[in-house]
Amino acid sequence: MWKITENSFDPASQNHKETIFTIGNGYLSTRGALEEGYPGESRASFVHGVFDDTPVVFTELANAPDWMALSILLNGERFSLARGTILDFQRELDLRSGLLTRRVRWQSPGGHVATLLFERFASLADEHLLALRCQVIPEFDGEIEIRAALNGNMDNEGLTHWLHVSQRRENWETVCLQTRTRKSGIALALAMRLRGFDSPQPDYWDVENVPTLRQVFPARRGETVTVTKFVGIATSRDSDDPLALALERAARPQSWDAALEAQKQAWEREWERCEVSIEGDDEAQIAIRFSLFQLLIAAPRHDNRVNIGAKTLSGFGYRGHAFWDTEIFMLPVFTYTAPQIARNLLDYRYLTLPAAREKASAAGYEGAWFAWESAATGDEVTPTWVPDFHDKKKLARVWTGDLALHISADVAYAAWQYWRATGDDTWFAERGAELVLDTAKFFAARAEWQPERGCYAYSDVIGPDEYHDHNNNNAYTNRLAKWNLQTGLAILDWLKNNQPGKAIELARSLDLNAERLSKWQDVAEKICMRVEPDGLIEQFDGFFALKDIKLADYEPRTRSMHEIFGVEAANEYQVLKQPDVLMMQYLLHNEYSDEQIRTNYDYYTPRTDHTYGSSLGPSIQAIVACLMGDVEEAYEHFIRAARADLRDVRGNAGDGIHAASAGGTWQAVVFGFGGLRIHADGSWETHPHLPQHWQSLTFRFYLHGQQHIVRLENR
Amino acid sequence: MWKITENSFDPASQNHKETIFTIGNGYLSTRGALEEGYPGESRASFVHGVFDDTPVVFTELANAPDWMALSILLNGERFSLARGTILDFQRELDLRSGLLTRRVRWQSPGGHVATLLFERFASLADEHLLALRCQVIPEFDGEIEIRAALNGNMDNEGLTHWLHVSQRRENWETVCLQTRTRKSGIALALAMRLRGFDSPQPDYWDVENVPTLRQVFPARRGETVTVTKFVGIATSRDSDDPLALALERAARPQSWDAALEAQKQAWEREWERCEVSIEGDDEAQIAIRFSLFQLLIAAPRHDNRVNIGAKTLSGFGYRGHAFWDTEIFMLPVFTYTAPQIARNLLDYRYLTLPAAREKASAAGYEGAWFAWESAATGDEVTPTWVPDFHDKKKLARVWTGDLALHISADVAYAAWQYWRATGDDTWFAERGAELVLDTAKFFAARAEWQPERGCYAYSDVIGPDEYHDHNNNNAYTNRLAKWNLQTGLAILDWLKNNQPGKAIELARSLDLNAERLSKWQDVAEKICMRVEPDGLIEQFDGFFALKDIKLADYEPRTRSMHEIFGVEAANEYQVLKQPDVLMMQYLLHNEYSDEQIRTNYDYYTPRTDHTYGSSLGPSIQAIVACLMGDVEEAYEHFIRAARADLRDVRGNAGDGIHAASAGGTWQAVVFGFGGLRIHADGSWETHPHLPQHWQSLTFRFYLHGQQHIVRLENR
Repeated sequence: MWKITENSFDPASQNHKETIFTIGNGYLSTRGALEEGYPGESRASFVHGVFDDTPVVFTELANAPDWMALSILLNGERFSLARGTILDFQRELDLRSGLLTRRVRWQSPGGHVATLLFERFASLADEHLLALRCQVIPEFDGEIEIRAALNGNMDNEGLTHWLHVSQRRENWETVCLQTRTRKSGIALALAMRLRGFDSPQPDYWDVENVPTLRQVFPARRGETVTVTKFVGIATSRDSDDPLALALERAARPQSWDAALEAQKQAWEREWERCEVSIEGDDEAQIAIRFSLFQLLIAAPRHDNRVNIGAKTLSGFGYRGHAFWDTEIFMLPVFTYTAPQIARNLLDYRYLTLPAAREKASAAGYEGAWFAWESAATGDEVTPTWVPDFHDKKKLARVWTGDLALHISADVAYAAWQYWRATGDDTWFAERGAELVLDTAKFFAARAEWQPERGCYAYSDVIGPDEYHDHNNNNAYTNRLAKWNLQTGLAILDWLKNNQPGKAIELARSLDLNAERLSKWQDVAEKICMRVEPDGLIEQFDGFFALKDIKLADYEPRTRSMHEIFGVEAANEYQVLKQPDVLMMQYLLHNEYSDEQIRTNYDYYTPRTDHTYGSSLGPSIQAIVACLMGDVEEAYEHFIRAARADLRDVRGNAGDGIHAASAGGTWQAVVFGFGGLRIHADGSWETHPHLPQHWQSLTFRFYLHGQQHIVRLENR
Repeated sequence: MWKITENSFDPASQNHKETIFTIGNGYLSTRGALEEGYPGESRASFVHGVFDDTPVVFTELANAPDWMALSILLNGERFSLARGTILDFQRELDLRSGLLTRRVRWQSPGGHVATLLFERFASLADEHLLALRCQVIPEFDGEIEIRAALNGNMDNEGLTHWLHVSQRRENWETVCLQTRTRKSGIALALAMRLRGFDSPQPDYWDVENVPTLRQVFPARRGETVTVTKFVGIATSRDSDDPLALALERAARPQSWDAALEAQKQAWEREWERCEVSIEGDDEAQIAIRFSLFQLLIAAPRHDNRVNIGAKTLSGFGYRGHAFWDTEIFMLPVFTYTAPQIARNLLDYRYLTLPAAREKASAAGYEGAWFAWESAATGDEVTPTWVPDFHDKKKLARVWTGDLALHISADVAYAAWQYWRATGDDTWFAERGAELVLDTAKFFAARAEWQPERGCYAYSDVIGPDEYHDHNNNNAYTNRLAKWNLQTGLAILDWLKNNQPGKAIELARSLDLNAERLSKWQDVAEKICMRVEPDGLIEQFDGFFALKDIKLADYEPRTRSMHEIFGVEAANEYQVLKQPDVLMMQYLLHNEYSDEQIRTNYDYYTPRTDHTYGSSLGPSIQAIVACLMGDVEEAYEHFIRAARADLRDVRGNAGDGIHAASAGGTWQAVVFGFGGLRIHADGSWETHPHLPQHWQSLTFRFYLHGQQHIVRLENR
């Protein structure tokens, strides 16, 4: 169960499949578009950190020049699935090795038949190397013409980010292209080296922005023509001379086999760290591996100046911007299976602290308020206005960038979680502590004393449940703020005891005087929180007074309740985009009794839009259901998360992978069904709740540098 | 004085010069970018009516595939003004023939010297034909390589509007390209036919979207290599088979000389209709011909579904949208020198009446309210919000689309003026009358009775002076509305007497019952208008109560008063972007005594931002100054208008020609200095006020199909 396969070509699901068949290596990803192109394709490669300016959403990952471009002509007839007859088709992504293969037997309109085998991968052994091989087995005698190119004429759904700089033929088998982003001025170089184009020398078509090598091969029935394309890629973010780097990496591989062998070894090491086996449930098995694969190919291994976007590097959705999805949904996967990646991602937040301080300060507060949507610099890049869906002359205001406070606590939580799991005191003292302290400072500053209620409030916020905005005292926000403040104080104590020099330095640089710290204590103790006598927590002030509905009355439906009600009206109902209170109870579940979790679970679950609400919800819902022992219900939610991309259950997988759902799927398996609990002292235990049809579940995780492999069986 | 010349190449003014050296034929225009390209160029061709969707401004003319692409390599070194040494440079636009030529003597970095002569024109004899010739005279022996292409990878300042459809080599000297706009789905075909690429056969580089023919010529010192490129172009707006049309037109020319001869003849006929001679003032002479040329190359001769944008077809400014600039500034030129073009432009308004009715109706009124910015359909395409200049996270509201009523009267006025000048009763009865009647209907509906003042008001409007918005009773708007209502009633009478069938038809279709017509009469008689005892007209209610300033106190300055004050504050001062009241008095000058015009002229002139306000102002200011007999002052304003593009006095000529200023320049010469007055009975006279240094002024105009040539001399 390592392969995602497809046995026929369906143009209608082309964009969905491009997402599914994305390959990558943590430096860049390339969607599963066809080498030769297809009408309506959403062809894209994204390189981490290569952002450029764009209207409305401020900045986006620039769709990089196409490294795959390859045209094949059979006796002068151009191979394309849009023409002729597809006699046989198979596509396969091997998650174990990251190799994408496609085998097509095709008959041209003129009757020429050939089998074409395409293979490609983004090397995990050398992140600046891309490899593509094409084998053509003709069933005719004549000619096979192959044109291989680098294509700099790429755009982001109509917006071009590139300016051609130069190109040349480096040697008879190698051409290169230099280009740069228009506004951000990032230089990018590609070098294409062909193998198999050896006799006679290929033609060089020196067309601006599309340097092309072209060769005509004699075709003999049954004899394979093989062409291999190695592409080196580098940017000015990586090197002062990206062209030299790209040329060097393209020239390195001895052969296809050698490059592929290095790739396989690199991936083997990867899977040794994180592999999950589920016996008895093929769909769950492939989904968990697919989820891990998608996170792994988007995870920066050698760069701590980037984060993972909500759609990874696999599509245009959310423009490459990072959200809390990273900290709450994806990071646990890395923290427990690839801590060095988790550290890079947390470093990104540390390095963007200046922007977070600037955001807080611009709003009139001290401390660090992280951007709801974050890109190259950490500046807030949430669009403030977007065209109204129904009337493009109108604009709809987007509030998350102004009102979502919880992102700061989410970052602090993830830094703390990383520290607890890894015991990486050095990093935590050096960088992590400041993340927790400066966000605590923000929450203390943002809290408003409510004399009539005798508690500290956060008014006019938006919590995880985005069906409701402009709320006061969102439970998730308030509780996480409290946690942040308390943890800040605890960390200061730890620093004083363990890194007294750092404690003094931070106290000075963040001005953590006694008065300020006593305010932290006061806010943490007196945060507003409305809890009913039975333990039911109100999601925000006045939630229980909202109109109640039975979501079941609206089934079956194919739209979110947001769409059905409209933005304004959705605010008036007790209907949730995702389980806000349950999320809080999951993150801090030691703070709540099983009974109180049950009370809240029973109340909020029927009021949550599980099917078309947030794709972040189902995995958390599954975990909390497991905590409650409701395994069947848990499985229903889990499989919804697991299918988010593979089955495109929301119809938008073409925009890219639902990365939070991928991370949540792993968490649901490990913390939900596997019931893994990690204690403050570094010990751990499992409280498994395996679905009945699972024979076994095996997963791996690291604690304090030590790998643990857990095998759980259903008896 | 027919040539615009440039004797050295200045990269800093490249974009300005691209605008100046725009060529065109009323079907398309091509900016004066260099054939071989140059960094930072704003390379563009625009085809009338080929709009595509774009964010914020809704729709824009799509920058068409580049038909000029031509690369020249001298012994392997690519010719580019960005490299090597420019030994000699001359560029020249012959306004008489529309031929743009460039002669460069250039030394390559490797020391190869050659003279290159480029010539190009957009054929006025065949609007689907473009022609380009390149002659290379080497001063070395070796090789000259020439690559000629069609390049479909064009964008509008970053936005790509095209999707490649297909391309092929049609025969050994011809390749073609088919593409279509992404959203509006307009198909465009180009066919490139080369002459001079004859032996051996050129190579065909079949790179997607850039079909290229390439040939290597032996170079012998002093021997000229000549290549001619004919490009046929057509769209699905012109033909069901644009490719066939493009191929046919590319194949037609027998030779460069034959095509150029046809071009010269066509332009000769053009100038016979409208030529203006000014003896004794070279700058004025070249400016008036340049203005006419720019209008003529943008004027649709065979298409009544398009209008002329505020920047013609010569740049990205205003995205190809048409404003009142057409009716009030440009149309008189055509009405009096090329009535068939004027009729096409008025037909456009007639054909967009449904959209104008829809706009009125959506605002709650009957009748026709034309779009302030109009494109393919006549729907309002004024952006509602644009990014704030200083803070891109903020948005600035654009009000003209909501508040500018006067556009409807401007259209009616132009239709009426065309009718008076041409005597084209057929067209007027068929189409023009409806323009006047349905706009009158709108103005009657939009008027609000003010019982306390006893007059009909138009509140919350914006007049021609855009430094002030949200005004009540803008004098220009109110007076033109009154004219529109009165003229509507008069036209109905004329129809009843002359075309009774049409009168009945329109009365029925527009529901022009007695009650409605009596309302028209009532509104026209009782329109609000504040006139001081001395005849001074208040620009809008409360204008005289605004803070007064001396504009002279702000000199010298390099920014508009709008920029200096800011949008909000500019509203608080008696400072004008353009002379609103004077404009009204110019259009209806028979209604005002010279004395009253003088009173208003004296008041408003010192309060008008002539230098950096609207580019529409100076020409009108010049005409009114002539009416007053202030010739010296008139000349100062006139020359400011005349220099708008040639000297780039506002620094934004790179965005395209100031078309209103070009039209206004002609009006200032003919109606201002020439003092032409046309009477209702078709008679005319001149009241010349020639500047002292003009020896003579000769201009031509048509009245009722009869050309008149007027020569005025300074004695």
